[in-house]
Amino acid sequence: MKKKTGPRIKEMHITPIAVTDPPLLNAAGLHAPYALRTIVELITDDGISGLSEIPGTSAIDAALYEARPLLIGKDIFQLNEIRQILVSHFGTESMANRGATPWDQRKLVHIFSAVEVACLDIMGKVVGRPVVDLLGGKMRDFVPFSAYLFYKYEGAGGELAFDTDPNASGWAAARQASGLTPDEIVTQAKAMCQEFGFQSIKLKGGVFEPRQEVDAIFALREAFGPDVPLRIDPNALWEVGTAIKYGKEMESVLEYLEDPVRGQVNMAQVRKALKTPLATNMCTTSFEDIPHSIALGSEDIILSDHHFWGGLRASMNLVSVCETFGRGLSMHSNSHVGISLAAMVHLGAALPTLPYALDTHYPWQSEEVLVGGRIKFENGAVEVPKEPGLGVELDREALARLHKNYISCGLTQRDDLVEMRKVVPDWEFKLVRW
Amino acid sequence: MKKKTGPRIKEMHITPIAVTDPPLLNAAGLHAPYALRTIVELITDDGISGLSEIPGTSAIDAALYEARPLLIGKDIFQLNEIRQILVSHFGTESMANRGATPWDQRKLVHIFSAVEVACLDIMGKVVGRPVVDLLGGKMRDFVPFSAYLFYKYEGAGGELAFDTDPNASGWAAARQASGLTPDEIVTQAKAMCQEFGFQSIKLKGGVFEPRQEVDAIFALREAFGPDVPLRIDPNALWEVGTAIKYGKEMESVLEYLEDPVRGQVNMAQVRKALKTPLATNMCTTSFEDIPHSIALGSEDIILSDHHFWGGLRASMNLVSVCETFGRGLSMHSNSHVGISLAAMVHLGAALPTLPYALDTHYPWQSEEVLVGGRIKFENGAVEVPKEPGLGVELDREALARLHKNYISCGLTQRDDLVEMRKVVPDWEFKLVRW
Repeated sequence: MKKKTGPRIKEMHITPIAVTDPPLLNAAGLHAPYALRTIVELITDDGISGLSEIPGTSAIDAALYEARPLLIGKDIFQLNEIRQILVSHFGTESMANRGATPWDQRKLVHIFSAVEVACLDIMGKVVGRPVVDLLGGKMRDFVPFSAYLFYKYEGAGGELAFDTDPNASGWAAARQASGLTPDEIVTQAKAMCQEFGFQSIKLKGGVFEPRQEVDAIFALREAFGPDVPLRIDPNALWEVGTAIKYGKEMESVLEYLEDPVRGQVNMAQVRKALKTPLATNMCTTSFEDIPHSIALGSEDIILSDHHFWGGLRASMNLVSVCETFGRGLSMHSNSHVGISLAAMVHLGAALPTLPYALDTHYPWQSEEVLVGGRIKFENGAVEVPKEPGLGVELDREALARLHKNYISCGLTQRDDLVEMRKVVPDWEFKLVRW
Repeated sequence: MKKKTGPRIKEMHITPIAVTDPPLLNAAGLHAPYALRTIVELITDDGISGLSEIPGTSAIDAALYEARPLLIGKDIFQLNEIRQILVSHFGTESMANRGATPWDQRKLVHIFSAVEVACLDIMGKVVGRPVVDLLGGKMRDFVPFSAYLFYKYEGAGGELAFDTDPNASGWAAARQASGLTPDEIVTQAKAMCQEFGFQSIKLKGGVFEPRQEVDAIFALREAFGPDVPLRIDPNALWEVGTAIKYGKEMESVLEYLEDPVRGQVNMAQVRKALKTPLATNMCTTSFEDIPHSIALGSEDIILSDHHFWGGLRASMNLVSVCETFGRGLSMHSNSHVGISLAAMVHLGAALPTLPYALDTHYPWQSEEVLVGGRIKFENGAVEVPKEPGLGVELDREALARLHKNYISCGLTQRDDLVEMRKVVPDWEFKLVRW
């Protein structure tokens, strides 16, 4: 029998793009008019294309270019070897230090993710199976997501936004509208749930003083009733006492409380005081962080993100770690387009259980790099692709247009502080605010 | 593009076999003249065969028969679903309770392993890649094993043994010879290392009082020098004080000390007292055992066994857990033939690091169910198969012959106590002996 070797990586294309992003508020400031993503395409010696998408920064793009010569010629099945090559080159220390902002700034995990997901896309095409089948097969046909609400200023994002129609209605209107008061948040939630069918709701907090945000949660409860699970994410900006005080107040209405405080030690204190489960994507964000989390008992739920945990297989390993220690697992998100969404859906489909609907920023974006355009949600869930690989195809014209956006918008990294100061000139980022 | 579904399981053949096994002594008594294994063959609707091998007992064979109707018709890629179906049917409680003997008596993990390995064999054939490539690809071309020494009575095993030539020399002679004194153990080690090229040595202890076994370790050190790593496995039969006393004496010569005492609490006490790493396949033997092991710090090295941890992918998950918590990983063995060996080699090849040569009983067996006969060792290592799947093919005549052995030998489960009492009528198994 002929032994197959390869397919091997022949080309690696690294394309930064900028997609319209509304003026969303968060603990680190304000979203810029464009969110940056980097699209990676691997092409094999037999012409098969594999795609991935990661958060875009010029530093990580530069690292991807640095990694490229190490990857050319490699068999796409040799993921263990590829990982070792990248660790050897970049050094394990670059896996630590995610940074204090709500988004992750580590280099190596992003590169792993970009390369691994694209290799799995190719592998699926070679094998004739969807990526989920390379993760042990699907446990469900639809992967549920939650409505991800944001405090926001009026506006729909960069001038290239698809829809800034002042006469828009429904989600198209809500996406542009101001979202600052509890009432406006409820309006946003209703429009988003109406449009996408979401059946649970998350509010990104850490923007206003806790009273206002907690009031928004109770307003949501009032509007949606007890059957719609609610979560709030103060992005680690609360003091322990604040978290316990408002955590107790919200105990009867929250599904989980996400990163109320900064650091595992503080999380453990809050966790002891509350019945509500604590979730994190800021305090325990790497395999290195896990032992201390377990020792302290700092969280109940890890909000995984395959971009930051080193890919889909690493995320499945994280699932095992969580299962072993009785921790739950759900997923974190940043502003993204459909390649990341597809990867999340394949991973979500392979999870042994999925008790919490996943986070996604996808409703806030309006552009897409995929043939067929925007991915559809049904009842708040995305159907698991049945096509080989990720089941997505690059729309090269759209990619070129969004790359042109990237060039013309002038942004090279996410900096919510700079954006915030355009509105509030003396605004300061604080590690802990209330 | 045509979406592929399947291949699907059409047939599942369960064939218990008996292979000649010498009268090896251990903590639970004496090996019977035949070791029992069960060979599982899955055949897909398009005629692809997948193989696996697990320890044989009539109880687990019966469970495999019980599982069979649940598996027929299942797509071999849907391993997550298959696992859930088996858990639902057999109940998770059957995963606990490995039993007090040195071998594992849990049902569900054996069934998982049997089904998963055979599915991976098929998957590899479908994809045209060796199984290691379905585990992320190989990190090495050869997987090293250690010389696994046993105290033994004279004899080569059942009357069907391939070689009971009284004029045999080398390993063929040593395999038949008495191995009771330190000198005889050294002779056994030399013959085994000469034949197979092993570069590290493990002595199965828990047979004689510790002084005699520790003397054998020092005799091995004397004979092989400091460059050959040594290990001893008292199979949990020592008291804490005994383990610390002899552990300290052997501190300068042991690579690791395996299961000196019974239970995680005792292991943790010994671990605190010694510089030598502790390894286990008796005190921490399931994912459920891990949290307590980590909390106590009871072991440094988990001796995994894909038959007992639920297959190759579960073993890779265990690798992640071990990496996350700074624990080492190596592999445990029972008497086995080449399908288990091939599976161990694929798994061993995928491990990120392999600091400890793996255990194998393989030199003690003399029969084989594979086309091409016995698998070769080079310098103590087995070359990773390059052929699709496990890279082994069933010799159906050999299988039939060894199944006939199973029928005629009359054994239906491993019972070293019964065998031991044939030699020492009043022999008793003890949980802790010295």
